Amino acid sequence: MRAVDIIQKKRDGKELTREEISFLVQGYTRGEIPDYQLSAWAMAVYFQGMSARETGDLTLEMAESGDVVDLSPIAGIKVDKHSTGGVGDKTTIVLAPLVAAAGVPVAKMSGRGLGHTGGTIDKLEAISGFTVELSRKQFFRQVNEVGAAVIGQSGNITPADKKLYGLRDVTATVESIPLIASSVMSKKIAAGADAIVLDVKTGSGAFMKTLDDSIELAKAMVDIGSHVGRHTVAVISDMDQPLGYNIGNSLEIKEAIDTLRGQGPKDLEEVSLILASHMLVLGGKAGDEQEAREILEKLISSGAALEKLKDMVAAQNGNPEQIMNPDLLPSAARTVEVRTVQAGYVESIQAENIGVAAMLLGAGRETKESVIDLAVGIELRKKVGEAVESGDLLAVLHVNEVDPTRLGEAEKKVLEAYSITPQAVPAQPLIYALVTREGVTRY
Amino acid sequence: MRAVDIIQKKRDGKELTREEISFLVQGYTRGEIPDYQLSAWAMAVYFQGMSARETGDLTLEMAESGDVVDLSPIAGIKVDKHSTGGVGDKTTIVLAPLVAAAGVPVAKMSGRGLGHTGGTIDKLEAISGFTVELSRKQFFRQVNEVGAAVIGQSGNITPADKKLYGLRDVTATVESIPLIASSVMSKKIAAGADAIVLDVKTGSGAFMKTLDDSIELAKAMVDIGSHVGRHTVAVISDMDQPLGYNIGNSLEIKEAIDTLRGQGPKDLEEVSLILASHMLVLGGKAGDEQEAREILEKLISSGAALEKLKDMVAAQNGNPEQIMNPDLLPSAARTVEVRTVQAGYVESIQAENIGVAAMLLGAGRETKESVIDLAVGIELRKKVGEAVESGDLLAVLHVNEVDPTRLGEAEKKVLEAYSITPQAVPAQPLIYALVTREGVTRY
Repeated sequence: MRAVDIIQKKRDGKELTREEISFLVQGYTRGEIPDYQLSAWAMAVYFQGMSARETGDLTLEMAESGDVVDLSPIAGIKVDKHSTGGVGDKTTIVLAPLVAAAGVPVAKMSGRGLGHTGGTIDKLEAISGFTVELSRKQFFRQVNEVGAAVIGQSGNITPADKKLYGLRDVTATVESIPLIASSVMSKKIAAGADAIVLDVKTGSGAFMKTLDDSIELAKAMVDIGSHVGRHTVAVISDMDQPLGYNIGNSLEIKEAIDTLRGQGPKDLEEVSLILASHMLVLGGKAGDEQEAREILEKLISSGAALEKLKDMVAAQNGNPEQIMNPDLLPSAARTVEVRTVQAGYVESIQAENIGVAAMLLGAGRETKESVIDLAVGIELRKKVGEAVESGDLLAVLHVNEVDPTRLGEAEKKVLEAYSITPQAVPAQPLIYALVTREGVTRY
Repeated sequence: MRAVDIIQKKRDGKELTREEISFLVQGYTRGEIPDYQLSAWAMAVYFQGMSARETGDLTLEMAESGDVVDLSPIAGIKVDKHSTGGVGDKTTIVLAPLVAAAGVPVAKMSGRGLGHTGGTIDKLEAISGFTVELSRKQFFRQVNEVGAAVIGQSGNITPADKKLYGLRDVTATVESIPLIASSVMSKKIAAGADAIVLDVKTGSGAFMKTLDDSIELAKAMVDIGSHVGRHTVAVISDMDQPLGYNIGNSLEIKEAIDTLRGQGPKDLEEVSLILASHMLVLGGKAGDEQEAREILEKLISSGAALEKLKDMVAAQNGNPEQIMNPDLLPSAARTVEVRTVQAGYVESIQAENIGVAAMLLGAGRETKESVIDLAVGIELRKKVGEAVESGDLLAVLHVNEVDPTRLGEAEKKVLEAYSITPQAVPAQPLIYALVTREGVTRY
């Protein structure tokens, strides 16, 4: 078998066999097939696509390129959740205790972030003492005893995907649905998930800007799930504005706590309840979404969900008092107000700009070496559809020591993110579609 | 400027600027842009193509990536000729003395071959003493004094093309018209040509199998010529069977001599006269093809063309007696006859198979290190359209010491190359089309 023949076959629009895909992926991981052949192949895939079978095979080959976590020491159906990423997305911190409280074990390995704010485990480190490094044994024990654990990714998970993603990033081959889908799913499979709920974001602040592209990506991932025997469901949710009001690590923990108390922003609560409902159904703890939702609402109103977060935090050496009293979480030295001079209605909030502003304040990493300031960030005060008067407060920046030029830039970015129109803005849907093995349901 | 942005621009079907193309080509030549970006870009070009302007710019950038030969010390319009390659193609050896005899200076740098038989300079080395290594000064002096010189390529000509071609070969990106066209033309331009006549082969034995593809390639090269100010004309000629009867280095020299004497195979003579006519017109030695043809026919019948070959050979230290008496050229120890058991008409002769058979006998190089046997080869005795009886001789193999298995394989390949049909075969055209700046003329 020769790599050049496999590239040509894909270039000519033919379907690759499992053996050919394996030859490429494993040869590449071992360094026997060079970058220049994989990049040509990735570009051919960009143009010719891959069948569901090929995408499934690619996913499995990448999952098997390194360690595959065996979650069998944990009782029950392990349901993982993945979001394609957006600004202000703190749903994992809401979902982990919420579905654990309903009896679905959550054994979550998560990443640090490069970009607007930290990743989920950076955010959790805003809780003092919270450790994201557990041994495999401690991890399993905590999930069995407490019901949930969120730790950093360790070990040699999907090295093929890491290497290929790095290559795609510098060869303009990122934007390929089968390559994106297999990258996401290979990591979930290697992390040991039995079933997977996907939150595919759509809109200006998402990787997929249009609903059609988002649905196509969701379908590709759900198809992979079917191909590899992991029941997968995808929710398409809005990212035409940030989710919730808070962007920044400590600020997002606060908002997640509010949501677990039943006092969170409506959009964050709704997305969390929908994702959690699917997790309960896949985890066998509810017969359908309606039943799941009732269970979940009760767990919030009874305080059981928040209690579960407190237990998880305590088990991971974090300070549980900060959960019951979020004012004890890190907060910034001062606040800076961003006000509008226009009157009208908020038409959209460019999530991307808000994210960049948060990063400028120090909430995210510009490079792998950057140190995150967990206390800083942005609190939005107006969201899409709301009426504003000239002089109204749009957002509050939470600021520590910062270069005045960067602060000025951050203010400018936030102001630019808001687009204000004289006409009233109709309500936008929060959930656009549900993609399951049975098909696509648009709302 | 970043290579990844240029790859993405091409991937998205946009036209690259001269600056972007230069950044890629020169950066790649200097080793600053890695193979994996160029291969992804080449695959994007495979799918998106390039405009005539882009292809011209790429050609110039590749031509300028190394030495550019300045032929200005040679008086007159230097017209180069290039063939896209086929089996039994010895036209350069006919053309060089023929057009030189008409007053068009021929300063030809040619390559060695990897494949069926040697390249033009390998073939010329069948003449004893013939040297293909001249200093630039000797080269210019010979062309000025004798009118023609054919030497090996020396110096650092189009390093970008060499590097890119090697990469395309292992990344399934060879078959792209703009990339093929710019590769050919960059070498001609770097070799100093003022004007270029192209012989684009079409058919089963050619790189381009269909007439449409061949015309497209020819158009791309003629367009490049216009873009870079080198008047270029392309003839589309048949390669559904080998050109002439002889395949093998010494055997091809003999056939070229026969042709210069006016006793060569009709197809080789006709292709040579047509290419030479265009060279005379581009070189300003004839007003039109008809006039050129009359001049050329006279040069053959008068013996002036053959005399010119003798002079060129003598100037390059070769033995001129071998030109006047080709029996003195190297010949093989023995011959092996290949006969048919079928009766009917020759429908086609797979040139590829004949070429492989010649290589098996030792006429060509399997690897760069192979040593060519200049005496061996194949003499066809029947060509397309001819009637055959069972037992008739199809071809004669000229053989030196050879492994019997290889010999058996060579005989089998020759036999397989012939397809014989009961019905009479209509005459096939030899020249399919002419492509000039003014357009395409199909015959």
